[in-house]
Amino acid sequence: MSLALVVGTANPSLGGAIANALGVERHPCIAERFPDGEIRVELGGTLRGCDVFVVQPTAPPVGDSLLELVLLGDAARRAGAARTVAVLPYFGYARADRRTGEGQPLAARLVGDLIGCARFDRAITVDLHTPGVEGLLPMPVDHLSAIPTVVSALAAHAPEDAVIVAPDLGGAKRADAFARRLHRPVAVVHKTRISGRQVEAHGITGEVAGRTPILVDDMISTGSTIVASIEALRAHGCTAPAIVAATHGLLVGPARERLTSLAPAHVVLTDSVAHDASGLPEHVASIAPLLADAIRRIHERRSLADLLHAS
Amino acid sequence: MSLALVVGTANPSLGGAIANALGVERHPCIAERFPDGEIRVELGGTLRGCDVFVVQPTAPPVGDSLLELVLLGDAARRAGAARTVAVLPYFGYARADRRTGEGQPLAARLVGDLIGCARFDRAITVDLHTPGVEGLLPMPVDHLSAIPTVVSALAAHAPEDAVIVAPDLGGAKRADAFARRLHRPVAVVHKTRISGRQVEAHGITGEVAGRTPILVDDMISTGSTIVASIEALRAHGCTAPAIVAATHGLLVGPARERLTSLAPAHVVLTDSVAHDASGLPEHVASIAPLLADAIRRIHERRSLADLLHAS
Amino acid sequence: MSLALVVGTANPSLGGAIANALGVERHPCIAERFPDGEIRVELGGTLRGCDVFVVQPTAPPVGDSLLELVLLGDAARRAGAARTVAVLPYFGYARADRRTGEGQPLAARLVGDLIGCARFDRAITVDLHTPGVEGLLPMPVDHLSAIPTVVSALAAHAPEDAVIVAPDLGGAKRADAFARRLHRPVAVVHKTRISGRQVEAHGITGEVAGRTPILVDDMISTGSTIVASIEALRAHGCTAPAIVAATHGLLVGPARERLTSLAPAHVVLTDSVAHDASGLPEHVASIAPLLADAIRRIHERRSLADLLHAS
Amino acid sequence: MSLALVVGTANPSLGGAIANALGVERHPCIAERFPDGEIRVELGGTLRGCDVFVVQPTAPPVGDSLLELVLLGDAARRAGAARTVAVLPYFGYARADRRTGEGQPLAARLVGDLIGCARFDRAITVDLHTPGVEGLLPMPVDHLSAIPTVVSALAAHAPEDAVIVAPDLGGAKRADAFARRLHRPVAVVHKTRISGRQVEAHGITGEVAGRTPILVDDMISTGSTIVASIEALRAHGCTAPAIVAATHGLLVGPARERLTSLAPAHVVLTDSVAHDASGLPEHVASIAPLLADAIRRIHERRSLADLLHAS
Amino acid sequence: MSLALVVGTANPSLGGAIANALGVERHPCIAERFPDGEIRVELGGTLRGCDVFVVQPTAPPVGDSLLELVLLGDAARRAGAARTVAVLPYFGYARADRRTGEGQPLAARLVGDLIGCARFDRAITVDLHTPGVEGLLPMPVDHLSAIPTVVSALAAHAPEDAVIVAPDLGGAKRADAFARRLHRPVAVVHKTRISGRQVEAHGITGEVAGRTPILVDDMISTGSTIVASIEALRAHGCTAPAIVAATHGLLVGPARERLTSLAPAHVVLTDSVAHDASGLPEHVASIAPLLADAIRRIHERRSLADLLHAS
Amino acid sequence: MSLALVVGTANPSLGGAIANALGVERHPCIAERFPDGEIRVELGGTLRGCDVFVVQPTAPPVGDSLLELVLLGDAARRAGAARTVAVLPYFGYARADRRTGEGQPLAARLVGDLIGCARFDRAITVDLHTPGVEGLLPMPVDHLSAIPTVVSALAAHAPEDAVIVAPDLGGAKRADAFARRLHRPVAVVHKTRISGRQVEAHGITGEVAGRTPILVDDMISTGSTIVASIEALRAHGCTAPAIVAATHGLLVGPARERLTSLAPAHVVLTDSVAHDASGLPEHVASIAPLLADAIRRIHERRSLADLLHAS
Repeated sequence: MSLALVVGTANPSLGGAIANALGVERHPCIAERFPDGEIRVELGGTLRGCDVFVVQPTAPPVGDSLLELVLLGDAARRAGAARTVAVLPYFGYARADRRTGEGQPLAARLVGDLIGCARFDRAITVDLHTPGVEGLLPMPVDHLSAIPTVVSALAAHAPEDAVIVAPDLGGAKRADAFARRLHRPVAVVHKTRISGRQVEAHGITGEVAGRTPILVDDMISTGSTIVASIEALRAHGCTAPAIVAATHGLLVGPARERLTSLAPAHVVLTDSVAHDASGLPEHVASIAPLLADAIRRIHERRSLADLLHAS
Repeated sequence: MSLALVVGTANPSLGGAIANALGVERHPCIAERFPDGEIRVELGGTLRGCDVFVVQPTAPPVGDSLLELVLLGDAARRAGAARTVAVLPYFGYARADRRTGEGQPLAARLVGDLIGCARFDRAITVDLHTPGVEGLLPMPVDHLSAIPTVVSALAAHAPEDAVIVAPDLGGAKRADAFARRLHRPVAVVHKTRISGRQVEAHGITGEVAGRTPILVDDMISTGSTIVASIEALRAHGCTAPAIVAATHGLLVGPARERLTSLAPAHVVLTDSVAHDASGLPEHVASIAPLLADAIRRIHERRSLADLLHAS
Repeated sequence: MSLALVVGTANPSLGGAIANALGVERHPCIAERFPDGEIRVELGGTLRGCDVFVVQPTAPPVGDSLLELVLLGDAARRAGAARTVAVLPYFGYARADRRTGEGQPLAARLVGDLIGCARFDRAITVDLHTPGVEGLLPMPVDHLSAIPTVVSALAAHAPEDAVIVAPDLGGAKRADAFARRLHRPVAVVHKTRISGRQVEAHGITGEVAGRTPILVDDMISTGSTIVASIEALRAHGCTAPAIVAATHGLLVGPARERLTSLAPAHVVLTDSVAHDASGLPEHVASIAPLLADAIRRIHERRSLADLLHAS
Repeated sequence: MSLALVVGTANPSLGGAIANALGVERHPCIAERFPDGEIRVELGGTLRGCDVFVVQPTAPPVGDSLLELVLLGDAARRAGAARTVAVLPYFGYARADRRTGEGQPLAARLVGDLIGCARFDRAITVDLHTPGVEGLLPMPVDHLSAIPTVVSALAAHAPEDAVIVAPDLGGAKRADAFARRLHRPVAVVHKTRISGRQVEAHGITGEVAGRTPILVDDMISTGSTIVASIEALRAHGCTAPAIVAATHGLLVGPARERLTSLAPAHVVLTDSVAHDASGLPEHVASIAPLLADAIRRIHERRSLADLLHAS
Repeated sequence: MSLALVVGTANPSLGGAIANALGVERHPCIAERFPDGEIRVELGGTLRGCDVFVVQPTAPPVGDSLLELVLLGDAARRAGAARTVAVLPYFGYARADRRTGEGQPLAARLVGDLIGCARFDRAITVDLHTPGVEGLLPMPVDHLSAIPTVVSALAAHAPEDAVIVAPDLGGAKRADAFARRLHRPVAVVHKTRISGRQVEAHGITGEVAGRTPILVDDMISTGSTIVASIEALRAHGCTAPAIVAATHGLLVGPARERLTSLAPAHVVLTDSVAHDASGLPEHVASIAPLLADAIRRIHERRSLADLLHAS
Repeated sequence: MSLALVVGTANPSLGGAIANALGVERHPCIAERFPDGEIRVELGGTLRGCDVFVVQPTAPPVGDSLLELVLLGDAARRAGAARTVAVLPYFGYARADRRTGEGQPLAARLVGDLIGCARFDRAITVDLHTPGVEGLLPMPVDHLSAIPTVVSALAAHAPEDAVIVAPDLGGAKRADAFARRLHRPVAVVHKTRISGRQVEAHGITGEVAGRTPILVDDMISTGSTIVASIEALRAHGCTAPAIVAATHGLLVGPARERLTSLAPAHVVLTDSVAHDASGLPEHVASIAPLLADAIRRIHERRSLADLLHAS
């Protein structure tokens, strides 16, 4: 059974990098738009009996990325693939994994079911916003961790006095994982309620004054969380230019402007989604080697245990 | 069980017209985009025990229209709707109901399955590109005909000498349905192969010279079919300004420019999809009364037999 | 994984011919009727780990053919087949792919779902009445074209002055495919409406007078379409004995008598269904080589691209 | 919600009797054969919001009866039925509820799944060959007992000296149910193995000599079981003309001749399947009142507890 | 449609309290164990057309509770219930909503699928360990919040100087919800890493010294988290007897001993699961009124918006 | 593809014996209970591309055995198993394959569906209580017969004068299978109704007086059937110490005491379930060789025809 790597249009450069890392050609694949916006997909060559990996983050524009993903999966299955695997470096709608009002959909489950329509045999994801999202996909998932990738990129830039900072309570576990690997202390920015009636203010747990903050998060969307965190850090005497690190650099809306205005020392992002970080001191920590390694092992039926997300 | 009309963002003015025709308020509904393009859906009020109709053509941008449709359906079901019905004035990807190459997906089936993920109990469609698309949806479908609606709008404009013209062989049956209702003869534009080795040219079956052509089609996308048909008509001595009629006026890409340059006498389109026909002598034949009638009857458990597409 | 060819009772001679073409024995298989008409199926030998192809057109008697098909598929799967493929040279109920009345079933979709109950991994079909029927089957389909097979059989008999005739508008595309391969012109028989109020008459597009007509269709059921076409051809001065060609020769009811009375020069049919053409100048263009080729390639995981139906 | 009774072609006279018992008209329904044997189904009137009961035993010809059943169910669902119930007075393939060889299908499960394709909400069955068949249908089943119906018909004919005879061990429980209701003793015909090496012979448990045997079974197919039982009874001194009773009188193949030659005193059968008992002293114990009662209660949401099969 | 309340054996006293609050009788229901431990379920009376609510927390013994739940749901559906709703005051395996190793199952999703086998139409849950678990159930869920219930019970006992304490970072949001309602400040116990190489210690964010701690959690299982939290609080000068509050008081293993040894001022638990809190200063905050209210509203098709969990 | 044998906690010694017979190590597997009774499953090593067999009878405690079974299957599938096979030496709830009252579940079907949630590709069962239970599992089943195993164990102990005794009518077929293999006559204990009004008494068909009875059954649960049979035998002059044989020795409740008090000559049971037969003259006829043989053949894609249950 030979390996075929199909790369969608959501992140072709990542797909190319995975192909390089695997030492294979990208499988011939057309995925273009008709004038009315409908997607035309056609896979070339033959996929009979192949082990097909479809690389497509469901990143913005999410609707189209998602639809193209399932079209590619359906095409591969109909073309006779022995197995199809959805490679999802970024999983859109992961934050919508719960309903907080009676009139809401459960979008993340729905997206999982939609992806299931293409009958992928397995899926690969990376640093899901919430680990529980794995269960919203109907097929088995290998949930990879990009933390070692990001840590490697940070290692060269992390001064001795650095402190790993989680921008909110939900990120504390992740910050701790970085701290253990980088041998640095950890701090958490959080909302504080001084008394029951008083409004909230940002507090910080851990020693940050005078240190270089390394802010770590799973994704940077509009950058608002990072901005608020850095303001809080400054208010607590942590004024050195920050290092910002995240797996998924969506950088939508005002994100680039906001980050630029913060004048960070470094911004470390992976290439899980295609983004525009021009003007930022960005260091791309590519997850292509990680994904290529996972794909290779899945293809060769070897364990991925040491690549998996651990919480 | 009360009726609730949920209107998505793909065609709000049609939704409003249906609400008016039904004499109901649109159900409170938020469907907006987050900065990263993810759709946030929230239905207001309560839908417990309601008969919910979700109006959303899967028109361009198809990916987002489709995703919003299933999010609305999922929200209604989770909110306790007794029944949910997808009202699809236009069904995207209907032309992709077959594979013509080994590496192609079967997009129309896949779209049917995706819509099925929201577990709608029924669906309403209008003038599907191919009637067989009904079978690609997993739930029962009421496939309505907008031909009477378009015919009514044409009746006032059709001169005595008019001839109903199908722009290709696939449209002959439809043209005939118009001809029967308007009591005019029919003609068909088609590709002709003079000998087996010669290239094709456009031929026309039926008398068209000196007549006013009424071109009828199910949809106008980029307008290329209409342009080619009018050229063929002119070459066959049919030079009067044409009347152009179609159910679905997508008018994407160069469509508006192309149509304008043809200087048609009238363009009759329905409001199944939102479109920009500015500069064209457009007459909108609204299908809101048709859809409102169908919704009312489904809600009241009455027959729709006389509203259905008959071929 | 070894190949096993299971042949049902609907068309054993085709099954035998496929076995010959493949150079394999038919897998031992009992499919007999109990006195109460229930079908007893038992597959012999062992199928553990085999690639099983079940040859069974769902031809008349359709109910029994269909039931036997799924019984054979179920038996193979339970017996441990690694993969089961339904080989459907003819697909019954293909014309029932739409509902034209409120009280009708959608039979073709239902048949697709019934076949799905046997959990076949793939299906092979040949010249479906409408290509969109592919999407009504829940598993991937390789939709083969028998046109090259029929064309080869026709080539020796087609005089220089022949014209390829489609018996109705729906067959125009198919006639054109024959015309391109045989390097002959094409004509289409169609219903004409001279004015809006006048009843229909048969018209013909294309030059036919004085030529030898080669009528091509996907299937001949009762022969009524062929009879009407030849009458129309004669009325248009096309009086030479016709050549009649079709993939699926059901020849039910009065078909044989009707065809005989037309005194055709040749009748070219495939062996997709078992039929009785005695008394007719029939030339059987066997699709066994085509099906054997497709089966071999599917078994060996090779592309079928050049065997597929292209529209 | 109004009740609609749809009667298929497998047993129209039973359907008519049920309609009479219910005091309703049969719902307008076309179910005819095309010349190629495909079934054309069309339900008239409207079924929107109706509680639809489809009466169709899956009796010989089983393939067609089954296919018509699902076509009727599909048509009703698509036409807007609020609920569809399959009324299956006889369930074909019930004896094929197990595999006794590696190459066999599990036909009864498969048939259950096929019926499930029409998405019936419930099913009604009568005296299943094995009660466990209920679990092979994917929807809830009300498994009715026709024993009281048959017992009533027998009561007038059962002489004081009668003995209820089960024709095999599997029928012992059923015979006991008759015996309890008729206050007669019970006997069982069975195969006996005198020593381990000797071939079998028919033995009888219970006193039969000089008595009038009432042979009871769930179905009479070819009559071979009845013939063998009566031979065994005669060999054990039970020579009075037998009374034969069964729920399902298929009477296929040589059944009528065999029964006639036995010269039974009475043959009591229900009308669960249409059959030809001409020449036999047959008494039809109609299950129409039973089925009408069950339908009425299901429609009115009342308990069926006292109508159900109890083992 | 009448309401039927079926109470399983996992928490009969809660079921009884719900029945009282609803003013209905518990539906007659046998759920007993055979000597081999298999569960025998039989629902009495009739459920035809009823709106059936099955009350059964999937609490220890989880395997049996779960199996009984689906047996009850299956029985109700087969008996003709119009709708079945699973009322799950406690959802076992909620913590297993992710895989942290390659060889692990995804137990919470699996449990969701198992519950789905009974084809419940809806489910009611209370204070899920992670809100995302809602998406692991295949049917719509009304996820209720017991926080108002617990807060009411706490209000009388909360001294002015109290501080709401979350025992870990994951509980911060919940603690904040209590703090807002009780107008008290909040504190969070968490693991701290002083430097990157140093082992962890418990830190506390927020002012706790000299205050009365109100420890709030979603569940108390073995009590180890509470014990560790109180040790940490004491180490930070918070030595007043604690008030402990949680929705789900499993109190398994050494829980009761551990809690007793801590000598808490009050222990507030709901009756979502049956537990033994003897010897503890327990105050039961019954969720029967909450569940009864939700059941009543679902039955009457009224909104539950203000009863739902909000995060 | 390599074979992995995963052994659950329901019968580890059988699992070990299968491993020995196969000459493989048990795959590393943790299946332990948390303090709250939830099961923690973790498979070690790697299962990528393996053919995984999970040995777990669904014996008492059935709820937990069943849940552990599906957790193990789910873990194996998610870990990348190429195929998973449920090895079910004993199938709980097999007797609940029918409903005898309106308010009952159909437990055996439900259990089949639950097992289906783990998406096992195949299942192996042994001597199902009713062969029709095979059809209640959604995946293909290899239903093995342990009769040859039990017969081998009996052969040495069966005196010349032995008679094979079925304890009820349902067991007659099974007894006959033993009789044929052991070359001994057969007898059946059954309930007799002397007249229609008289209460039942135990009768016996076949010669038993003065012979040594070998009672054979599929399972011994509480032993009540065996006790009643031996009483009946004694009443018919069959007083020699009995030999008792069954495939599934559950021995729950008073079983061991009851059997002991009967003072049987031998008790032959298999090790399909773990049981305590201390104090009984038990001979264990291990089915480990049978199961190992079946597993080996499935793994190597060889026929199991001669191992299968034949009725």
